[in-house]
Amino acid sequence: MTRQVYDLCGANDVRFSPYCWRTRMALAHKQLDAEFLAWHFTEQEKLKFSGSRTVPVLVDGDEVISDSWRIANYLETTYTEGPSLFGGERGAELTRFTHAWADAILVPAVARCVIGDILERIELKDQAYFRASREERFGLSLEQMTERRPVYVQALDTALLPLRVCLRRQSWVAGEAPAYADYSIFGVFQWARVISPEDLLTTEDPVFEWREKMLDQFDGLGRRFAAAS
Amino acid sequence: MTRQVYDLCGANDVRFSPYCWRTRMALAHKQLDAEFLAWHFTEQEKLKFSGSRTVPVLVDGDEVISDSWRIANYLETTYTEGPSLFGGERGAELTRFTHAWADAILVPAVARCVIGDILERIELKDQAYFRASREERFGLSLEQMTERRPVYVQALDTALLPLRVCLRRQSWVAGEAPAYADYSIFGVFQWARVISPEDLLTTEDPVFEWREKMLDQFDGLGRRFAAAS
Repeated sequence: MTRQVYDLCGANDVRFSPYCWRTRMALAHKQLDAEFLAWHFTEQEKLKFSGSRTVPVLVDGDEVISDSWRIANYLETTYTEGPSLFGGERGAELTRFTHAWADAILVPAVARCVIGDILERIELKDQAYFRASREERFGLSLEQMTERRPVYVQALDTALLPLRVCLRRQSWVAGEAPAYADYSIFGVFQWARVISPEDLLTTEDPVFEWREKMLDQFDGLGRRFAAAS
Repeated sequence: MTRQVYDLCGANDVRFSPYCWRTRMALAHKQLDAEFLAWHFTEQEKLKFSGSRTVPVLVDGDEVISDSWRIANYLETTYTEGPSLFGGERGAELTRFTHAWADAILVPAVARCVIGDILERIELKDQAYFRASREERFGLSLEQMTERRPVYVQALDTALLPLRVCLRRQSWVAGEAPAYADYSIFGVFQWARVISPEDLLTTEDPVFEWREKMLDQFDGLGRRFAAAS
């Protein structure tokens, strides 16, 4: 039975969830195939079987796992013969803080920069849900946030400082080779790349170079998904 | 020959460098003794032998190592029989991002909150250097920063979010047991604790509970140094 991932989908089949991108990269790292099923914000009924209201959801034989972090840990402990996602026994625990930073700091910082672009690139049926949920989350209208974009881009630049410092000292967040610490962060940049024509990084930033290398991983898996224009 | 650490010292022998605290905890973790030599901001000539202008500097037989991160890696690779500071082969690389966050985000966020208190707790001979260097770094007078403290305390609270998320999910930053990822962050809180009467954490914060547990480590090593009053 083919492994399946429920994958957030916008208009024109754009696959733009930062969380689903983590799972896509983790599966590629483990050299595991999967079918990525297009799922839209308003298709709650299609996820009911999983007990989760959000994607990614991985269906692997009889196993149903949701949440990108839990999926990564499932893959790590189930497919022990593949390359390690965390590197070493305590690797998952040591990756936790980096993952928490990506979720708590990077996701909202990037969201503020690209949120207006998302609205334009999701299907009409999903737009009302998206607008209402995001305007509630951020306490501003999408149009107000788009107006403030220069301020948000500057704030993102500041927030990226620890990543920049880390990548000045080693090639990958995980060290000598990319691993889940990298995918956890890369998912957020790939989300921005496929959904927004705004480039959030300048070419002299070590984070830019690292993102380019991430796009080259697994025979250019990330790059095969077009950047928004 | 006794191992020695050059350790930043204020008035009344207060030992308040976040970086020196990392080294103190790392040595205790490795079960290694050391003599901590009081060093003051204006005693540059005493460090000349090391090639470093800042502490900690570790002298271990013929080895002279400066910079808290380099010292931790030196201890890890030199004293392989003691408990690991990083946990596993790739542990140091996986700890790098957490360490970079502590340096790039946490240190300046805490500094803004406690900077006025530091001036009052260092020796007279060091005050002119401290004022000039810090006012240049932050672009504000120490008095202006003290006035803005409520804003800085709020900003620190926000900056702590990834640490809070991490500690809601596992007991220590490094996972099931404390390791260098914890010491790297703890050093910054211990600095604040010994130099400022302001408590920066509320008791319901998971970071507060974690700091209490850190103070208990190694028979209460951190707690043996009095909190500022």
